[in-house]
Amino acid sequence: MKNICFLGIDLGGTNFKYAVLDKEQRIKEYKVKPIAGWEEPEKALAFVEALFRKLAGKYNLLSLGFGLPGLVDYQKGYIHYLVNLKKWRNIEWKQILESKLQLAVFLDNDVNVATLAEYYLGAGYGCRNMLMLALGTGVGGGLILAGKIYRGKNNLAGEAGHIPLGLRGPSCNCGGRACLESYIGNRRLLRKAKTLAKKNPDSFLARRWSEKGRIDLEDVTSGARRGEKLCIEFWKEVAEKLGMVVVGIVNLLNPERVIIGGGISNAGRYLFQPLREFVSGRAMEIQAKNVEILPPKLKDGAGAIGAALLAEFALEGKDF
Amino acid sequence: MKNICFLGIDLGGTNFKYAVLDKEQRIKEYKVKPIAGWEEPEKALAFVEALFRKLAGKYNLLSLGFGLPGLVDYQKGYIHYLVNLKKWRNIEWKQILESKLQLAVFLDNDVNVATLAEYYLGAGYGCRNMLMLALGTGVGGGLILAGKIYRGKNNLAGEAGHIPLGLRGPSCNCGGRACLESYIGNRRLLRKAKTLAKKNPDSFLARRWSEKGRIDLEDVTSGARRGEKLCIEFWKEVAEKLGMVVVGIVNLLNPERVIIGGGISNAGRYLFQPLREFVSGRAMEIQAKNVEILPPKLKDGAGAIGAALLAEFALEGKDF
Repeated sequence: MKNICFLGIDLGGTNFKYAVLDKEQRIKEYKVKPIAGWEEPEKALAFVEALFRKLAGKYNLLSLGFGLPGLVDYQKGYIHYLVNLKKWRNIEWKQILESKLQLAVFLDNDVNVATLAEYYLGAGYGCRNMLMLALGTGVGGGLILAGKIYRGKNNLAGEAGHIPLGLRGPSCNCGGRACLESYIGNRRLLRKAKTLAKKNPDSFLARRWSEKGRIDLEDVTSGARRGEKLCIEFWKEVAEKLGMVVVGIVNLLNPERVIIGGGISNAGRYLFQPLREFVSGRAMEIQAKNVEILPPKLKDGAGAIGAALLAEFALEGKDF
Repeated sequence: MKNICFLGIDLGGTNFKYAVLDKEQRIKEYKVKPIAGWEEPEKALAFVEALFRKLAGKYNLLSLGFGLPGLVDYQKGYIHYLVNLKKWRNIEWKQILESKLQLAVFLDNDVNVATLAEYYLGAGYGCRNMLMLALGTGVGGGLILAGKIYRGKNNLAGEAGHIPLGLRGPSCNCGGRACLESYIGNRRLLRKAKTLAKKNPDSFLARRWSEKGRIDLEDVTSGARRGEKLCIEFWKEVAEKLGMVVVGIVNLLNPERVIIGGGISNAGRYLFQPLREFVSGRAMEIQAKNVEILPPKLKDGAGAIGAALLAEFALEGKDF
């Protein structure tokens, strides 16, 4: 007899990932695939169907969870829009998939499902209140409060990337100003790294640029590892910006864990050490002593694993 | 037969207030008294006992709730310290009162009980997610999330007054820097009003000062009401500082209501109008459209009424 399992799919900007979890939440299968062809929801539907038919031959799949990069109505299973996929707009995705696959389907945004995974199976395991930040092109956030995903009135809670750091500052994609994302979104940081390289032609960063013909945030981390002040300072400034938001949330929500994931978290101790110092120096004493600032445990798999957990919990009617 | 009732006491800096609520949450009695003599916990105990004996002659009091201005362990009924009453430190207040009165006693901090009152009987009625801010000497905050008081790991959540507004700025009583409280705490605002009056000797504010021999924040509001630019601008700047924190919380928590209480909220439309404009201009679109920014309904009574609600809910084992 085939094992009872749950399928999770995490749709990203360049890849999609899927995970199959059994009832004991063991990962039976996990894969990363390019999303070429997924720009059209109709084609995506055919891909998902083919994937499901194939996996259904191996596992007894009870439900499907979907993590999506954009504005998704978790309650209704409706996609308002996806950030980098222009044709995904106003779609009854849950309903369409359910009638095609004859399977229960549940949707949520990608950061919420990743938060769920880290909470149940990763760096948030065993706590009751946590913030997860996903630092990439955008700065997303998810909240677990009093042991449950916190969603807010319109299922839009968690936008820690849009906490303002000052009255004035750069305008932000969200329509606001001086938001955390407008300072530490990937594009902004890349521009900053390039400016630094130009201003310091003898630096490791400048050499790297002329060697590779381009520059990545990983190069800034490599520079820091070689002891280049420029690069160490770069991550320290990111840590201060991030730190202001973390201090505010630590004081406001008194959480046990703050998990910092996404590409930028690969800077490792060059980011985490100044961040922890900033928070312990600036947040209220008891709150600061009781919070741990950690990298994620599940890394890139968090989204797909969390989507499979969503599939399981929502099907069981669990209050999560 | 005497009515079943619950007693709530709210201890403030200069007054204490008490309220008696019946099971239908109707206010049977509400009074404000000076706290002269309450500096010593032993004397306070005698006052509370005398009050309880007197009220017990009129009502069938089932429990007592206490709202306290300081660091209180809600779970253990323990007072770490009270802000303006130096001798109130490390006291098993619940245990002491319970053995003296032979009555169930519950403690919480003053902002949490006021938040409870506004949520069940005031401006928060009918919503599920709200922030309450109490603007006074300190800037306190309380949170109702997913229909319940949100407490965080150490029962210290809600400190919205200690969200930083920038990397640099005035040092704050909490040990941090550039916190909201360090900008709009009463003392800071009074200093600012005095500086303005000195710099503008022909202003209403300066005349008021020389007439009364002192100046209050109410005078700034009177000035605004007379159309004095100086005073209108004063409240607008307070609204911007407050607005940064409200924008951050609206984006992070997607609440339905933000309730702004405490002395400063008496500035009325001179505060609320620029605050609402700031939030609708800066917060994310859907979150901004779905939040109402309101003054409290229960005014100064919120603390005592909320303490009585705490007495009722905690006794009944309600999950609130």
